[in-house]
Amino acid sequence: MVSKKDKKETKKIVIALGGNALQSGNGPATAEAQLEVVKKTCEHIAKISVDYEIAIVHGNGPQVGRILLSSEAASDVTPAMPFDVCGAMSQGYIGYHLQQSLKYALNMHNRRVPVVTVATQMIVEETDPAFQNPTKPIGPFYTEAEAKALAEEKGYVMKEDAGRGWRRVVPSPMPRKIVEIDAVKDLWDSTIVIACGGGGIPVVEKPDGSLEGIAAVIDKDFAAELLAEQVEADVLMILTEVEKVAINFNKPDQKDLDSMTLETATKYMEEGQFAAGSMLPKVQAAMKFVRANPDKKAIISSLDKAIEALTGSTGTHITFN
Amino acid sequence: MVSKKDKKETKKIVIALGGNALQSGNGPATAEAQLEVVKKTCEHIAKISVDYEIAIVHGNGPQVGRILLSSEAASDVTPAMPFDVCGAMSQGYIGYHLQQSLKYALNMHNRRVPVVTVATQMIVEETDPAFQNPTKPIGPFYTEAEAKALAEEKGYVMKEDAGRGWRRVVPSPMPRKIVEIDAVKDLWDSTIVIACGGGGIPVVEKPDGSLEGIAAVIDKDFAAELLAEQVEADVLMILTEVEKVAINFNKPDQKDLDSMTLETATKYMEEGQFAAGSMLPKVQAAMKFVRANPDKKAIISSLDKAIEALTGSTGTHITFN
Repeated sequence: MVSKKDKKETKKIVIALGGNALQSGNGPATAEAQLEVVKKTCEHIAKISVDYEIAIVHGNGPQVGRILLSSEAASDVTPAMPFDVCGAMSQGYIGYHLQQSLKYALNMHNRRVPVVTVATQMIVEETDPAFQNPTKPIGPFYTEAEAKALAEEKGYVMKEDAGRGWRRVVPSPMPRKIVEIDAVKDLWDSTIVIACGGGGIPVVEKPDGSLEGIAAVIDKDFAAELLAEQVEADVLMILTEVEKVAINFNKPDQKDLDSMTLETATKYMEEGQFAAGSMLPKVQAAMKFVRANPDKKAIISSLDKAIEALTGSTGTHITFN
Repeated sequence: MVSKKDKKETKKIVIALGGNALQSGNGPATAEAQLEVVKKTCEHIAKISVDYEIAIVHGNGPQVGRILLSSEAASDVTPAMPFDVCGAMSQGYIGYHLQQSLKYALNMHNRRVPVVTVATQMIVEETDPAFQNPTKPIGPFYTEAEAKALAEEKGYVMKEDAGRGWRRVVPSPMPRKIVEIDAVKDLWDSTIVIACGGGGIPVVEKPDGSLEGIAAVIDKDFAAELLAEQVEADVLMILTEVEKVAINFNKPDQKDLDSMTLETATKYMEEGQFAAGSMLPKVQAAMKFVRANPDKKAIISSLDKAIEALTGSTGTHITFN
């Protein structure tokens, strides 16, 4: 058995998978269609595993959205699930597809590395400013009257969504602590771990030390960054739809970036080059990682180009200086 | 940190939790109500952890049933989930509640043992005789016409359910191999592992070595037995609603059993003393464990009496001879 343990020279990488690694933008939103996309994704990850010890963090936006929609739509039949439980369910769902598909892809490369999904809680702070201004819409659309009734009855924060109706909004606080980090570290040497799915199940720590699930959306790139710091990864790789980060994006003078230092990245951010909720959190997570680990590297690239990006021939490489 | 590693003398136990450990029979079927029951369950498990290294296997019947119901009822809104994915989701859901509640209960006992849920696939064999005779009803009730259309369209096996309508039935094959067993063993020394939830996500192994999820219900007691064998547990403990196994159950001459050898258990089974789908699989799993490990022990008892059962003062103790 070729285990990761046999390869002491191997570098450590945390890979953050974006939505396109799990689901085709124009395909059906079924579990079966997701599985087909995940299989292709895992072929790329299996190639990366030849030279790297891997942990995987995946997004869950569309999946947890559908779980919540389904749960709310069927609430006459069976009680609707709280949002933290929907997140836990999405970790089981996506993790299962990833571990099944990655194990097969690894076998095809003659690598018998175990792959396992760890259900992961992520502690966020109730004092996080995000709680003052919930911004992430979740669940179904409601009429204004329904929205006001929900706000009154359940204390939800409801906002109008660009003329399409009213939706519940939840905060997007920063991830602070991975509750199951010890298990992830324990497994790391021998196993490819899928952890912090969807950014982790959001929980807050109560004065008595207990954890309590809350309705929040945690950015999976920041969660991957935190995991990369904690396992002392050599590389934080954020995979998305584009091969490189660009400035002047979608303009005639668009310029794709081979690299950014903290200084240039900060300058571009100040210029507003990176879209909030899209490239901005990825660049911020990359910056946070190299600031904490000045001798390490973050890479933003696409799944198709991941191997080339790791050898340095493409992708945007973010370094301390 | 008091880790399990510090306690070399500690015995290993696999605990199979029945439905009543997760949900009150007469309470609401909400996630919030489940969490309250799980918290109480975890207080008992925390006590067991003082003297035992623990892995937990839980059932998922009512939970996966509700996930499927909700998914089918909302299929106009978002595509329904296949049954294997519903199982994976239930592992995330129940595992999250257990690991959150158990960590708190352990903290209350000053024990800083990590608790983690591992998404677990369970290989079953397509040649298993159960596939010839699917018996486990899942999902919503249909009219005869709907049932026949589903049978034709999707290949489902549909059966009439005692005059209440038609339901899909799936097989209940024997669990054969725990796909993620290496990770469970890796974690075992340092961590309380929740694995094989709902008996595991049922998968079959294809000729090319790939795994494929199927619609099946795996008995969680047999899954716990397999896990107990593989981690070389000292005790397989099956927790259910009764303190002891009984013969002549619910009759005037009911007799609660303190112990059974393989020989007496076989005799009672031949007499039809144990109800199929209820006490029978528990006794069978216990027998299978001690047959494979003649120097080990299986115990069937209730959650409330688990500690007393482990010290020998109650419960039904099943031994080789």
